[in-house]
Amino acid sequence: MTVSVQYAGPHKRGDIKKVVLAYSGGLDTSVILKWLQTTYGCEVVTFTADLGQGEELAPARKKAELLGIKPENIFIDDVREEFVRDFVFPMFRANALYEGQYLLGTSIARPLIAKRQIEIARDVGADAVCHGATGKGNDQVRFELAYYALKPDIKVIAPWREWELTSRTKLLEFAEKHQIPIAKDKRGEAPFSVDANLLHSSSEGKILEDPWQEADEMVYQRTISPEAAPDKATYITIDFEKGDAVAIDGVRLSPAALLTRLNELGKANGIGRLDLVENRFVGMKSRGIYETPGGTILHAAHRGIESITLDRGAAHLKDELMPRYAELIYYGFWYSPEREMLQALIDRSQENVTGTVRLKLYKGHAVVVGRKSPQSLYSMQHVTFEEDQGAYDQRDAEGFIKLNALRLRLRAVGQGGPKT
Amino acid sequence: MTVSVQYAGPHKRGDIKKVVLAYSGGLDTSVILKWLQTTYGCEVVTFTADLGQGEELAPARKKAELLGIKPENIFIDDVREEFVRDFVFPMFRANALYEGQYLLGTSIARPLIAKRQIEIARDVGADAVCHGATGKGNDQVRFELAYYALKPDIKVIAPWREWELTSRTKLLEFAEKHQIPIAKDKRGEAPFSVDANLLHSSSEGKILEDPWQEADEMVYQRTISPEAAPDKATYITIDFEKGDAVAIDGVRLSPAALLTRLNELGKANGIGRLDLVENRFVGMKSRGIYETPGGTILHAAHRGIESITLDRGAAHLKDELMPRYAELIYYGFWYSPEREMLQALIDRSQENVTGTVRLKLYKGHAVVVGRKSPQSLYSMQHVTFEEDQGAYDQRDAEGFIKLNALRLRLRAVGQGGPKT
Amino acid sequence: MTVSVQYAGPHKRGDIKKVVLAYSGGLDTSVILKWLQTTYGCEVVTFTADLGQGEELAPARKKAELLGIKPENIFIDDVREEFVRDFVFPMFRANALYEGQYLLGTSIARPLIAKRQIEIARDVGADAVCHGATGKGNDQVRFELAYYALKPDIKVIAPWREWELTSRTKLLEFAEKHQIPIAKDKRGEAPFSVDANLLHSSSEGKILEDPWQEADEMVYQRTISPEAAPDKATYITIDFEKGDAVAIDGVRLSPAALLTRLNELGKANGIGRLDLVENRFVGMKSRGIYETPGGTILHAAHRGIESITLDRGAAHLKDELMPRYAELIYYGFWYSPEREMLQALIDRSQENVTGTVRLKLYKGHAVVVGRKSPQSLYSMQHVTFEEDQGAYDQRDAEGFIKLNALRLRLRAVGQGGPKT
Amino acid sequence: MTVSVQYAGPHKRGDIKKVVLAYSGGLDTSVILKWLQTTYGCEVVTFTADLGQGEELAPARKKAELLGIKPENIFIDDVREEFVRDFVFPMFRANALYEGQYLLGTSIARPLIAKRQIEIARDVGADAVCHGATGKGNDQVRFELAYYALKPDIKVIAPWREWELTSRTKLLEFAEKHQIPIAKDKRGEAPFSVDANLLHSSSEGKILEDPWQEADEMVYQRTISPEAAPDKATYITIDFEKGDAVAIDGVRLSPAALLTRLNELGKANGIGRLDLVENRFVGMKSRGIYETPGGTILHAAHRGIESITLDRGAAHLKDELMPRYAELIYYGFWYSPEREMLQALIDRSQENVTGTVRLKLYKGHAVVVGRKSPQSLYSMQHVTFEEDQGAYDQRDAEGFIKLNALRLRLRAVGQGGPKT
Repeated sequence: MTVSVQYAGPHKRGDIKKVVLAYSGGLDTSVILKWLQTTYGCEVVTFTADLGQGEELAPARKKAELLGIKPENIFIDDVREEFVRDFVFPMFRANALYEGQYLLGTSIARPLIAKRQIEIARDVGADAVCHGATGKGNDQVRFELAYYALKPDIKVIAPWREWELTSRTKLLEFAEKHQIPIAKDKRGEAPFSVDANLLHSSSEGKILEDPWQEADEMVYQRTISPEAAPDKATYITIDFEKGDAVAIDGVRLSPAALLTRLNELGKANGIGRLDLVENRFVGMKSRGIYETPGGTILHAAHRGIESITLDRGAAHLKDELMPRYAELIYYGFWYSPEREMLQALIDRSQENVTGTVRLKLYKGHAVVVGRKSPQSLYSMQHVTFEEDQGAYDQRDAEGFIKLNALRLRLRAVGQGGPKT
Repeated sequence: MTVSVQYAGPHKRGDIKKVVLAYSGGLDTSVILKWLQTTYGCEVVTFTADLGQGEELAPARKKAELLGIKPENIFIDDVREEFVRDFVFPMFRANALYEGQYLLGTSIARPLIAKRQIEIARDVGADAVCHGATGKGNDQVRFELAYYALKPDIKVIAPWREWELTSRTKLLEFAEKHQIPIAKDKRGEAPFSVDANLLHSSSEGKILEDPWQEADEMVYQRTISPEAAPDKATYITIDFEKGDAVAIDGVRLSPAALLTRLNELGKANGIGRLDLVENRFVGMKSRGIYETPGGTILHAAHRGIESITLDRGAAHLKDELMPRYAELIYYGFWYSPEREMLQALIDRSQENVTGTVRLKLYKGHAVVVGRKSPQSLYSMQHVTFEEDQGAYDQRDAEGFIKLNALRLRLRAVGQGGPKT
Repeated sequence: MTVSVQYAGPHKRGDIKKVVLAYSGGLDTSVILKWLQTTYGCEVVTFTADLGQGEELAPARKKAELLGIKPENIFIDDVREEFVRDFVFPMFRANALYEGQYLLGTSIARPLIAKRQIEIARDVGADAVCHGATGKGNDQVRFELAYYALKPDIKVIAPWREWELTSRTKLLEFAEKHQIPIAKDKRGEAPFSVDANLLHSSSEGKILEDPWQEADEMVYQRTISPEAAPDKATYITIDFEKGDAVAIDGVRLSPAALLTRLNELGKANGIGRLDLVENRFVGMKSRGIYETPGGTILHAAHRGIESITLDRGAAHLKDELMPRYAELIYYGFWYSPEREMLQALIDRSQENVTGTVRLKLYKGHAVVVGRKSPQSLYSMQHVTFEEDQGAYDQRDAEGFIKLNALRLRLRAVGQGGPKT
Repeated sequence: MTVSVQYAGPHKRGDIKKVVLAYSGGLDTSVILKWLQTTYGCEVVTFTADLGQGEELAPARKKAELLGIKPENIFIDDVREEFVRDFVFPMFRANALYEGQYLLGTSIARPLIAKRQIEIARDVGADAVCHGATGKGNDQVRFELAYYALKPDIKVIAPWREWELTSRTKLLEFAEKHQIPIAKDKRGEAPFSVDANLLHSSSEGKILEDPWQEADEMVYQRTISPEAAPDKATYITIDFEKGDAVAIDGVRLSPAALLTRLNELGKANGIGRLDLVENRFVGMKSRGIYETPGGTILHAAHRGIESITLDRGAAHLKDELMPRYAELIYYGFWYSPEREMLQALIDRSQENVTGTVRLKLYKGHAVVVGRKSPQSLYSMQHVTFEEDQGAYDQRDAEGFIKLNALRLRLRAVGQGGPKT
C-alpha cells in the first residue's frame, strides 16, 4: 500500500559501481570521464548520441577507448529519427513557444538523452548516470528529472555541482595531469558556450552576458544573416498529415530528413535567429542566442495548416494551454503525467490537421501565403461578401448578439455598468 | 431586488425618435443615413471619428449637411490620443495576439466608437444607435455588445441585417434614387474591403477569399514590401514607463504621436504584414490581410522590456491568460467584467516595466537586440559562467531537483512510471 | 476545398417530411406531437428514453398510438447503462462541478437523447428533429448543438419558440380541442417544473423563483431530509478501476445498477440536495433545486481515490481545467472538439485511479474516511514524523527553497519587493 | 543595471548576530531558543503572535524571560484583526480551496508571521530569522519564501533541518540538560501534531498516518461531531460588503470578531471537518484532519452572495483561476507578483458583491437557503415561466444557437463530426 524511494544522498567512493556518462567526446566530458574513474573508482560506460549536432561520432569512440573505456562499454547511437519523430514533432503539434518566443531546441533533446542513458544503465547493469551540465542551468534539471522519472532508484552524479574544477585553469590542469588530449582551440577560453542538435543551436554566456549589447554576427553559426540572404524569395510547400510534416515541395521525407531539409532552406534565407532574455527554472534570468532555422519554418507552417483545419474551440483551447505545455518542457517535465495528459489533448486535436501550406522564405521570414486541405473547415460560401444563398442567415446574428449581451445589460441595470 | 431589461425587438416606423449613426462620410454610411430617414422617419445624428484612418474629416461634415443633417447633429471628433492611450496601450501591455498572430487592430477600435456614440446619444437624447457593419462579421458584435453594456435600453439598428439593399447594384440604385453623390471609384465593385485606423489596416473579401492564393502586392496599402525596403537596417530605441512606450530615440512623444512615428518606421522597413485565416466569433473562418507596422514594432519592444523587468511568475501567468484576453477583445467583450478583471491583473504586473529597448528594423523584421532598465531583474552576477562569488550556491540545485523529482520517483515506484 | 451548410431558416408547411420527436408521453410533448402534425402536416416519429427518470414507458407507447403514431414510428429505449457508462462516468472522472457546486445532472442527459434522435432520424429517413425545451433555458441549446454537430443538415423544430401556445390556458385548450387526454393533476398549474433522470432531479420555476425564499420541503422528491435521515451513520466502500466505480461494499455492479444503489443510499441519508442560483448560457441567472443523491456520494468517493493515486501535477492540471470542462457540458458542447480534447486529457490521467474508498453517510453528508490502493502514491515512509531512514533528506529542502526564492529575492533587490 | 543577492550558505558560529525566533512558548520552540544561543552564540529575539490559536500569551513571555531573553527582545502581538482582514478575507474573496477541498487555514497564517518577524528584524537590527517547521513539510517553504521576498539578504535558520535532535528522546535530553521546563503532558509522545489559529485547526502525523484508518473522534478539538450537534437547525444571516462579511444576524462585527462568532456557530453544529490526503509542495502526499468551522460557513455564504451579484463571465474566470491562486498560497507564494496579480483580478470582481445570505446550519452542513442584494443581477422578470412581457424574446435563442452551432456543423461537413 505504500511505496519506497531510497535517496542516495551525496555519494562516496565505493558507492558507485558502474556509471553511464553522457559523453560528447569533447574536453569537458573527457575530464568528467577521468574524474569519475579517479573519484569513485567505478566502471564508466559512455553514451554518445547523434542528435544532428553536426559533429562526427567516430572520434568520440576513439577518445573513449584512449581513456580506457572497454569497447563493450562504448555506446554510440544515431537517434536523429527518434528525436524528430517522438520528441520534436509532438512538441510542434502544440505550437510550443517558451515565453512567447523560444522554440525549445535544447529542452526537447535532454529527455531523449536521459532516456537512452537509463536504457543503457538497465542493459549493462549500471547503478548510476552522469551528465555534464552545470549547477546553474536548466539542463541539469531536465536530465535528472527524466532519470528519476524513469528509474527512481538511479544514482545521479553531476560533477559540476560536486568537484573542485570550478575554473577553466583547474580543468585544464586536471586534463594535462591525466593526459587528456586538448584540442588547440580549446586551450583558450571560448567566448561563449554552445549547444546544438538537429533542431537548433544555442549560444550563451561570456560575451553574450550583457543584454544591452547586440550579439556579434560571429555568434551565429547555423544561419547566414538576413542581410546576406538572397534578394529573391524562395517559395516552398509543406504537406502535413495529422499534424506532422511529411513532405517538402511534394517530396515525402522521413522526419529527420525533412527537418534537415528545412534547416538548409532556413539557413540559406537567414531564418530562425532569436536574441532572448529568458527565465530559467532555477530562478535567474539569462540571455541566449538561438538559431532554429528549420523549426521556425515548421512552426509557421503548422499554424498555417491548423488555421484551416482546426476548429475554433480546439484552436483556442490549445493556445491557452500552450504556455503551460512549453513551460513543462522547458523546466524538464517531459516525463511527467501532466505533460502526457496535455500531449493526449493536443494529439487528439490533430486528427484532421492534414493538407498543404505554401510559404515564402525571404531574408529572415518564413511567411505563410497559402493553405489548402481536403479536410478544410474554411467555407468560401459562408464568408463571401456576395449575396447569401441560404448558407447563412444574417438575421441569426441579432439573436446571437442579444443573448450574448443579456448579462452585460443586466449588469448595467443592476450595477451601473463598466467605468469608462 | 430584481432588474429589468426591455428588449426593443424588431423596430417599426415610429419606434425610433433619434439615432446616432457611426458615419464615415463614405457611400455605404451615406446610404444608411438616408435609409434611416426614409425607413424610420427619425432624426439622424452623425458621429465621425478620426481614429487615424488617414482620411480627412471635413468632407464628412459637408456630406452630412448635404444629406440634410442639422449642424448641431453633426459630431466630428479627433479621438486618436484617447484611442492609443486608453485602448491600444492597455491591450499592448498584455502582449495580446488573437490566435497567436493577429494584433487586433480592428477589434480594439470598435469599443471606442461605440462608447462615443452612446455618450452622444445621452447628450442629444437619442434613443437609438446605428452602425454599418454586416451581419456576417465580428464588428456588429463588437459595436452592439459595447452599446448594450453601456446603455442597456438603447435601440440598435443594423441596416445590413435588415434592409433589402443586399447587392451592390441595389445599393447604387438606392443612392442614385436619393441623390447621394457616388465617387467615381465607388461605382465599380471594390476588389476587397478595407478597414483602417492608427493601429492597422485590414483587407478582406472578394479577391482574398481563396486562402490558397497569395495576396497580391496591390492589396498592401500601409507598408512597402520587404523587398522594396532599404538594404540597410535601421536601429531605434524605445523607452517604456510602467508598460507603456513613451519615447523613440530618446524623444518623448504623446501616445498617438509615438504610434504614428512607429508606423512610419514600420512602413519604411516593410514591417507588420500578416496573411491570416482566423476564426470569427460568429462561427466561420475568414481570411484577412493585416498591416500593423507600428504595432508590430511595439509588440516586440514590449516583450523585450518585459524580458528583463518582469518576474517569471508574473510573465508566465500573463502568457497563460493572454489568449483569453485577446479572445475577449476579438469577440467584442471590451466592456465586460472579465476583461476589466484581466486588465487589473495585467496592469498590476506593469509597475516596474520601465526601461529602454533597442531594436533592429530590417526588411520586414523588428528584432530586439538590446534591453536595459533601472529596475532590471537580470543579474549578470548570477548568470555568469565565471567562478561563483557567493551569489549562487550550485549545491542548492541538488535539493531543488530532488524535491521536484520526488513525486515522479514515487510514481515510478507505485505506478510504473511513464511509457516511453 | 470548401464546405457547405444549408440553413433551413424558419420552416414552412411542406418543408418537413418526417420528424423525430423527443417524446415523454406527458401532456406537453403530446401537445407538441399533435401540433407538429397539424402545423407541418408531417409524419411524426416518437422517441422515448428510459434514462432512469422513474416513470414507466409503456404508457408512452400507448399514448403515442392513441395520437395516431404508427407502431414502426414509436421508439422506446432503455438507455440507462449507456447513459451512466458513456456520459455520467466520463464526466465524473473530471470531478465536474458547474459554478463550483452543480453536478450537471440535466446537462449530461441531453446529448444522449439528441444522439439517439439523430440515429433514429438516419434509420427512418427523417429530415427533422423536435424537442420540448423552452426558449429561455439551456436545454434547447444542448439539444440543438448536439443535433447540428451530429447531422449538420438536420432541420430543428423548437415549438416553444415558434407556437402561439404561450400560456397554460392556451395549451390546455389546444389539448382539449385535439382530444389529448389530460391527467387530472396536470389540469392545474404545477407549482414548479421538474426534470429527472438516473443521476438527478431538478426543480425550478414558479414558487422557487424568489432566491430569498427557502425551498419548501415538498419540493424535494428524490431524497428525504437530513432531519428525517437515520441518527446512525451508514458506512460503505466503493471500489474504483481506472477512474470508474465498479463495486459497492465489494459487490460488483453494472454502471447503472451501481448508480441506482448509490441513489438509494443517498436518498436514505438525505444526501445530495443543492439550492443554487446559477448562470444560464442564454444570459440570465436562474434558481434551481437539485437532488443528486448517488452522484454526490460518487463525486466525494472519486476525489477520495484520486487523492492517493493521482500525481500532484496531474491532479492540479485537472482541477484547473475542470471549470472549463463543466462549462462546456453545461452550455451544451458535449459533441465539440474541445470537450473531446479535455476528455482525452482526463481519461489519460485515470489509468491508475484504482482502489477502494470508505465513506461515512450521515444526515446529508458523504464523507471519505479511508482510502487504499494497490497503485497508491501515498508513502508513509516519506511522510512519517519518525526519524528518517534514508527515504528523504531534509537538507534537500534548503536548496529547494533557495532556488524557489531566488526570483523573489532578485525582485526585492531590483524592484523593492512586495507592498505589505 | 544588475542586481545582487548574497547567499548566506550554511551558517557558522559567529555568522549570526541577532535572530528573530517565531516563538510559541512551547517545548519545541523553547529548545530551539536555547539551541540558537548555544549553537550560534547569538542574541535571540522572540516573537509570539496571537493568531487566535486559543492559547494565552502571558506564559510565553514568562518562559522567554526564564530562558534569558531580555524584555526588550520579547515581542508579543495580537494580530487577529490583521490576520482576518488582510489575509483570510482576501483569500475568501477567491473562494480558495486547495485540491478542491482544503480551506488553507495553516497556509494563510504563515506569511503574516513571517512578515512580522521581518518587521521586527528591521526594528531591532537582527540579521537572521528562525522558525520551528520541519524539513518535510510545507511550512518551512511558506516561512522562508516570505522572509526572502521581504528581505532578500536575511539569514534563515531552520533548526529541524540542521540539528542533531532528530528524535523525541534527544530533544527531551537537550531540554533537561538546559533546564527547559517540560510540561507533564509533553513528556510522552503526542499521538499527532496540531496547528491552530483563528481560521482552523489541523492535525496530522503519527496515528493519522494510515489513510485507510478513520480518524478517531478524539482527534477533533475544535468542533463537536455532527452526531452530537443539535437536532434542530440554526438559521443565520450574513451581510457582505464588496466581498467581505461584515455582519451576522444584522449585527456588525469586526473581521476577527465575526470569524470568532462563525467559529462558535460552526463548532456547535459540527461544521467544518475535513479528512484529506493532499499533495505537499515538497513532493509527497500527506494526510491531514482539518477543522475550519467558521471558514466553512463563510465559504458557503460567499459563494451564495456571489451567485446573485457576480456576472457569469466574472464568476467563471474566477473559478478557472481559483486552483492556481489556492496553489500559490498553499505553496507559500503569498508574497509573489503572480499572487498579487491574481488578487488584483479577484478584488476587481468584488465591487458589487454586497448583500445578505441566509444559511441553515445543521449537523455538519452550512447550506445557503436564501440570498438578496441591492445590486442583484438575478432578474425574476427574465427567468419567469410566465408569459413574456417584452423582457426576453425567445426567438433570439434561435440565432444564438445557430451561430454557436455553425462551427460544429462545418466540422461535421468537412471532417465527419464527432465519434459517438
